[in-house]
Amino acid sequence: MKYSILFFSFLISSNYFSQKIISYANPMTGTKNMGHTFPGATAPFGMVQLSPETDQQPYVKDGKYNPETYHYCAGYQYEDSTIFGFSHTHLSGTGHSDLGDFLIMPTVGKLNLEPGDKKIPKSGFHSQFSHSTEKAEPGFYSVMLDDYNIKAELTATERVGFHKYTFPKSTDSHIILDLMSNIYNYDGKNVWTFVRVENDSTVVGYRETTGWARTKKVFFAMKFSKPFKSYGRKRYEKVDYNGFYRKFNENENFPEIAGRQIRAYFNFDTKENESIEVKFALSNTSTDGAMKNLQAEVPNWNFDQIKKQTQDKWEKELSRIQVESLNENDKKVFYTSMYHTMMSPSIYEDVDGKYLGLDQNIHQSDGFTNYTIFSLWDTYRALHPLYNIFQPKRNNDFVHSMMAHYEQSVHHALPIWSLYANEDWCMTGYHSVSVIADAIMKGNTDININEALTAMQSSSNLKYYDGIDSYLKYGFVPEDLSNASVSKTLEYAYDDWTIAQVAKKAENTAIENEYLKRSENYKNVYDSTSGYMRPKLSDGTFKKEFDPMDSEGQGFIEGNAFNYGLYVPQNVPKMIEIMGGKDKFSKHLDSIFTTPIPDKYIERNEDITRDGIIGNYIHGNEPGHHIPYLYNWTNDPWKTQEKVRLILNKMYHDGPAGLCGNDDAGQMSAWYIFSAMGFYSVLPGSNDYALGSPLVKSAVINLENGKKFTIKTENQSAENVFVKKVTLNGKEIKDHTLHYQDIIDGGTLVFYMSKKHN
Amino acid sequence: MKYSILFFSFLISSNYFSQKIISYANPMTGTKNMGHTFPGATAPFGMVQLSPETDQQPYVKDGKYNPETYHYCAGYQYEDSTIFGFSHTHLSGTGHSDLGDFLIMPTVGKLNLEPGDKKIPKSGFHSQFSHSTEKAEPGFYSVMLDDYNIKAELTATERVGFHKYTFPKSTDSHIILDLMSNIYNYDGKNVWTFVRVENDSTVVGYRETTGWARTKKVFFAMKFSKPFKSYGRKRYEKVDYNGFYRKFNENENFPEIAGRQIRAYFNFDTKENESIEVKFALSNTSTDGAMKNLQAEVPNWNFDQIKKQTQDKWEKELSRIQVESLNENDKKVFYTSMYHTMMSPSIYEDVDGKYLGLDQNIHQSDGFTNYTIFSLWDTYRALHPLYNIFQPKRNNDFVHSMMAHYEQSVHHALPIWSLYANEDWCMTGYHSVSVIADAIMKGNTDININEALTAMQSSSNLKYYDGIDSYLKYGFVPEDLSNASVSKTLEYAYDDWTIAQVAKKAENTAIENEYLKRSENYKNVYDSTSGYMRPKLSDGTFKKEFDPMDSEGQGFIEGNAFNYGLYVPQNVPKMIEIMGGKDKFSKHLDSIFTTPIPDKYIERNEDITRDGIIGNYIHGNEPGHHIPYLYNWTNDPWKTQEKVRLILNKMYHDGPAGLCGNDDAGQMSAWYIFSAMGFYSVLPGSNDYALGSPLVKSAVINLENGKKFTIKTENQSAENVFVKKVTLNGKEIKDHTLHYQDIIDGGTLVFYMSKKHN
Repeated sequence: MKYSILFFSFLISSNYFSQKIISYANPMTGTKNMGHTFPGATAPFGMVQLSPETDQQPYVKDGKYNPETYHYCAGYQYEDSTIFGFSHTHLSGTGHSDLGDFLIMPTVGKLNLEPGDKKIPKSGFHSQFSHSTEKAEPGFYSVMLDDYNIKAELTATERVGFHKYTFPKSTDSHIILDLMSNIYNYDGKNVWTFVRVENDSTVVGYRETTGWARTKKVFFAMKFSKPFKSYGRKRYEKVDYNGFYRKFNENENFPEIAGRQIRAYFNFDTKENESIEVKFALSNTSTDGAMKNLQAEVPNWNFDQIKKQTQDKWEKELSRIQVESLNENDKKVFYTSMYHTMMSPSIYEDVDGKYLGLDQNIHQSDGFTNYTIFSLWDTYRALHPLYNIFQPKRNNDFVHSMMAHYEQSVHHALPIWSLYANEDWCMTGYHSVSVIADAIMKGNTDININEALTAMQSSSNLKYYDGIDSYLKYGFVPEDLSNASVSKTLEYAYDDWTIAQVAKKAENTAIENEYLKRSENYKNVYDSTSGYMRPKLSDGTFKKEFDPMDSEGQGFIEGNAFNYGLYVPQNVPKMIEIMGGKDKFSKHLDSIFTTPIPDKYIERNEDITRDGIIGNYIHGNEPGHHIPYLYNWTNDPWKTQEKVRLILNKMYHDGPAGLCGNDDAGQMSAWYIFSAMGFYSVLPGSNDYALGSPLVKSAVINLENGKKFTIKTENQSAENVFVKKVTLNGKEIKDHTLHYQDIIDGGTLVFYMSKKHN
Repeated sequence: MKYSILFFSFLISSNYFSQKIISYANPMTGTKNMGHTFPGATAPFGMVQLSPETDQQPYVKDGKYNPETYHYCAGYQYEDSTIFGFSHTHLSGTGHSDLGDFLIMPTVGKLNLEPGDKKIPKSGFHSQFSHSTEKAEPGFYSVMLDDYNIKAELTATERVGFHKYTFPKSTDSHIILDLMSNIYNYDGKNVWTFVRVENDSTVVGYRETTGWARTKKVFFAMKFSKPFKSYGRKRYEKVDYNGFYRKFNENENFPEIAGRQIRAYFNFDTKENESIEVKFALSNTSTDGAMKNLQAEVPNWNFDQIKKQTQDKWEKELSRIQVESLNENDKKVFYTSMYHTMMSPSIYEDVDGKYLGLDQNIHQSDGFTNYTIFSLWDTYRALHPLYNIFQPKRNNDFVHSMMAHYEQSVHHALPIWSLYANEDWCMTGYHSVSVIADAIMKGNTDININEALTAMQSSSNLKYYDGIDSYLKYGFVPEDLSNASVSKTLEYAYDDWTIAQVAKKAENTAIENEYLKRSENYKNVYDSTSGYMRPKLSDGTFKKEFDPMDSEGQGFIEGNAFNYGLYVPQNVPKMIEIMGGKDKFSKHLDSIFTTPIPDKYIERNEDITRDGIIGNYIHGNEPGHHIPYLYNWTNDPWKTQEKVRLILNKMYHDGPAGLCGNDDAGQMSAWYIFSAMGFYSVLPGSNDYALGSPLVKSAVINLENGKKFTIKTENQSAENVFVKKVTLNGKEIKDHTLHYQDIIDGGTLVFYMSKKHN
C-alpha cells in the first residue's frame, strides 16, 4: 500500500508540470524590450512578486533623467547577464514604475556590500547568470548564480516570498538584504528603514520610500531555515546626529538597525550543496502583520509544497478558460496572456483583513478583499470587462477597493491610478467610473448603487484635476488651459456616459440627463473642416497649428487626432455620422493602418516601438484598442476580422520579445484574450461586445456561476480569418454583437470561418 | 437666583488664580541659562507641551556641532526677545534634546514663510515680544506678538493643544504650520511629512523625524474655529521625482501635502480683535487616533473652560503636598518644583489606550496607562522615589510602561532613556531596575514580581551595552575596554543590589546571592593607596595617570573620583570603612564642599555652571545628590543639615534663572521637594530615607490611601537650620532614618530646629 502511494505520487510529480495548463504560460514573455513584465514567482493577484533585478539603473544620472531606467520598470531585462538579487515587489507591464522592495542576494566569499557595475563582472555582489540555467514558471523561478555557484529557487504565496539557495561549501556564505535597492531609484527615494534582528533566524522591519507612490511603506518579516552565525549592516547616508547610539558598534551583531540607506547581511557556514531557505512575508500595516502573514501562509519549511500549492492555484485560475488552438504557439500566447492578467491588481491587506488606507490609517476590509495597483487608463478598456466574465467575484473586490479608496480620498475621488495606498494621478480620465459602471450594469457587484453614483459624480467634478474645471465651464477642455485637451475631453465624455448608465439604473433621471449631456461633449472638439477631433482654445477657436499625426502639444497624449480622435465608444454611429458617414469612416480606418507614422513622432515617446505599430495604428498604446472593431459599424465588418487577426498574430508572440509594448498591467493581454476568443468590449459600461475573428479553434469559459460558455469554430485556419456566419446556440447573430447575458447564461457560440470575406 | 449664581461665578473667576496653589508655581523658572524648562502650557504628565520657540538654532553649523543648540533643549531662552511660533512637544529640563513638533505661528501682512534671523527684526515670520506682556501659569501661557499686534493665548489638555490668537483687522491674516521646525534641528532630521486638508477647517497629518528618538512619528489633527479662505504649502527639499503630481499646482489649495521639508499656511480675513482658535491634537498611532483624542478631550470651542479644567487638574496635583513656608519665595520654589516633577513622564497613548510600541507596532495598554520620557539616570534617584509617596498610582503606570518597553525591546532590556517609542541609550547604568525595585519594595505596583525579576536580570546582562560584558567577566568595567568605567562599575553594583532586593522578595535565593555578590563590585575599583575609586584596566592594574578632579578619561562621566567616587548607596557603612572610617570620611565630605574645582574641568562640560557648584559639589549633575546626606553615617549628621539647607537656598530660586542646571526631567526638583520636607531617598530600593533639615515650616502630604503625613517644625527659621530633635508621632527618631511605612501609615513628624547643632 505504502509503495503504491509513493509510486503514484512520483508519477504525479514527474508529470506534474508538463501535463498542466500552466506549462503553456511563459513568464519570460515580455521581459525583453518594453514589455515591462517580470519572470519571477508570484501567486495569482499576490502581494509578493519575487523576481530578479538584472541591473540597478538610477532614475537620475548626471543630474538628468536617465532613460535607461525605463527599461527596468519590472526590474528585469532579458539581454542582461547579471543578477543583482531578488526583490519582493514588482509591477507588471506598467508604463512607469516604482517598488523593488527588499532585495535579497546570496553570495560566497569575501563579503562585498556594493552592488557593482553590470558591465564589470565581480565588481560587486551581483552575479553573472545565463538563460540556459533559468527556469520561469507561474509561481516558480530558478537560476544559477554563476559567480558563486549558488542555485537560486523562488516561489511565493500571496504574501510570502519563499527563497531556496543551494550553496557550495564555504565558511564565508552570505545572504545580503539590500534595503537601498529600488526600481526608479534616486537620491531621496529611500525615506526611512527600520530593522530588528529578533533572534538568530528572524528579522523584521519596514522601509518607507517616496516616488510614484509618494508615501509608501512596506513591512516585512523574514525567517531563515538555519541560524546565521553573525550579521551586520552598513549605513550609507551621512549621519549628522546619531544620539547615543555612538556607544555601540552598530555595524556588527547589533539587533536594532535604522537609517535611510542600509544594507544588511547575514553570515553562514555552508556545506557542499547545503540549502538555506528564506521565508519573507510582506505587510502594508506592520511587522506584526507581516509575522501573521508569514505564519498563516507558510507555517512550515517545505519549499516544494508551497511551490506546488501556488502552481495549483495558477492551474485553477488559468483553467477558467480552456482553449484549443491552431498551434502550440498560440496556446502559449493565450495562457501567457491569461497569466499576465493576474499579476495585478494585487492583494493589499493582511490575512486578517487589515490594510493601509489612502489616509495612511489602518483599515479593516469588511466583506471584501482589498487590492491595490489600478492602472485604470489602461485597464478599464478590456481587463476589467474581461474580469467581469472570468473573475467576477474578484472584480467585485476591485470595485469595493476602489470605493474604499474613494472613501479615504481627501479629494473625494475614485482612483485614477492606485498604488500602495497612494494616488499617483497617472494618465488622464476618471476611468474608475467605467469599471464600476461595467460591474453594475452586469450585475456583478454588491456595492450600493447610490453610494457608487455619488462617488462617480464626485470624481467627475474634481475641479483641480486635469482641466475638469474648464471642462465643466466650456463643455470641453481648452488646450490653452490644460494640455492633452482632446484626449481628456473625449475620455471625460465617455466616462460621463458610464455615469449616466448608472444613474439610469438607479432611476435618477436628473443625473442621467446631466451626464448624458456631458457625454456629448466630444462634439465640442470636432472640427468638421479638417474632419478631426482637434484642440480648441478657451476663446472657442481651434488651435491654429494642427498636425493630426502629432501628439503632445496637439491635444493628445499617447496618440494623435488620426487614431485617438476616434474615441467615442458611447456613440459610434453618431461619430461616424459627423465624420462623414460609413464609407468615409471606413476609409479613414483603412488609412490608419496604411499611413506610416513618421519617425519623429515616435522617437519622442519611449513607449512606442515599431513592433507595436501598423501604419498609424499603435497597439502598444491603449487609445486605439477599439479601433479594429470600429469597422463593424461601417459596411466593412470583414475588415475588423482581418485587422484583429493581423494584430493577434503580429503583435503577440511567445518568448522574451513577445510583447510589442508595455503589457500595461494586463490590458494588452486582456485585448488578446478577448480578441482570440472572437469578441471585444468596445464599450465598457454596456453589455455589448463587438464580434471579431477568433484565433482559437475553440474555447470554454468555465463561469463562476457553474455554467460554461463555449466558443467553437468551423473551418478555422491561419488563412481563414473571415467570419462567414456566427451562431449563438444555433441562432445566427447578424449584428456583429454578443451580449453579456448570452455569455453568462452559458451556451455555444460558433464561428464559421472562411478564407474570403462575405 | 440667576443673578446670585452669576455673581458667585464672577467671584470665583476673579479670585480663581490668586487664591490657588497653582499661583505659586512659576513655569518661567529655569527658562534662563541651563534649566532647560519651558514656560508654555501643559496638563500634568500630558502628551502636549505647547510652548514658544524663541530661536531656531541648528544642531550643525558650518559642518560642526553648534553649541548654541544646547541652550534650546526646551525651545525657549528667557533672554531672547523673539518668538518663532508655538510648538506642541517639549522636553522639560533634559540634558539633551529632541521634539519641537508642529510649530504654529500666526502672522499678519504679506505672507512670509521664512522664519528669519532672531537678530534681525522682521527678517522672517518670527515676532518681537516682551516679557511685560507674557503670562505663564500652569496650563496657560499668553504673550503679545508685537510685530503683528496678535495676542497669543495657549492652553492644553493631555493630548490637545488649544491656541487662541486675537488678530487685528486684516485681509491678510495667516496661521503658519511650520513642519520643518525642530529642536536639535539638522539636515536630515525631518524624515517625512504627510498632511491632508480634510475640509476648510480641519487638517490632519503626521511627521516622522530622526534624532535622539531615532525613529519618531507624531500624528496630529488640527481644527480651526473659523474656515480659512485659502491655504497652501511650500516644499523646500530638492525633489528629483514628483511622479504625476506635477500636473497640479500643489502650492495652493491642494489638499494632499507630502514631502520631507514642508511649511503650510492658512489665510484668513480678520476683524479687529477677532479671535481665531486652533485645537491641535496629537497621537502617536495615527491621524485617526489624533482625531479621536481631539473629539474626546476638546469637543467644544471653549478656551476658558479648557483652561480652567486644566488649571483645576494642576491645582489638584499640586495640592497633594500642602506646605507652609518661611516666606512666599520658598513656597513658590516648592510648588514650581512640584510643577516640574509633573512635566514628564508623558502620557503616550491615545484616549482608547492605543500606543506605538518600541517595535513600532501599535499596542493596546491593558490595565495601565502608557508613558514615555524616562530619563532614568537622573530620575531613579529622587523623582521616582518621590512618586512612590505622592503619585504611587502613576508610578505603577510608569513601571508598567517600563515593562512594556522591555517586552517590546529587541534587546530584551528595560529602558535606559525612553523617548517616543525609542531607546536613546543616554547616560550609564540600567536604572529601571532601581525604579522597579523601589516600587516593588514599597508595595506600590501590581506587576508580576517574577516577570519583573526576569526583565531586571535580562537588562543587567545586556553584554553589548556599555561594558557589561567585561563587567561580568572582570567584576568591574575596565577603563581600557569601556570609558567612564568607574561610574559604570559603581552604578551597576548599586543597580545589582536593587535586583537582589527583588530576588529576595521573590524568595529566589540563588538570584539574590548572585546579585548581592555583584553589588559588591564597587570594591574592585577602590584604590586603597590613593583612597579613591579609580579607573582600573583589564590587566588588573589601576590606570597610571590619575587625577581625582578630572572626569572624562578618568573613569567618570559628569563627575569625578572626588564626588562621584562616593556612589555606594547600597552599603554606605562599608564604603566609609574601606575609605578610612567615619572621621576621615567626614573630612573628605568637607573637602568636597570646600575644594574649588578648577575651571579647566568645568569648561569642558556644557552642563556644569558655576551656579550649581559648591567647591567640588556639583548639584547641577546628579551623581552627588546623595552626598550631603552621607554625613548622617559619620559622627557629624549636623553637617547634612547644614549642607542641605545651604543647597536648598543657594541652588533653587524663583524666576527664570531659578535653576542652577538642567532640571533633568524633574530630578533636581524632586531633590528639592524631598529635602525641603526634611528627608531624602539615599537608597532607592530600600524603604529608608535619611533625615536632613526641612526648609518648610510645615507640610502635609495628602496620601492616595486617604491618610495624611504631616511634617511640622518647631522654632523654624532661616538661621535655625540644625535639627535638635525629631519625633515621629511623638517618639524620637535617633538614627536619622525615616521609613516608608511611617509615611504611608500617616502620622506626624516634628523637627525641633535650632541655630546651633547638637
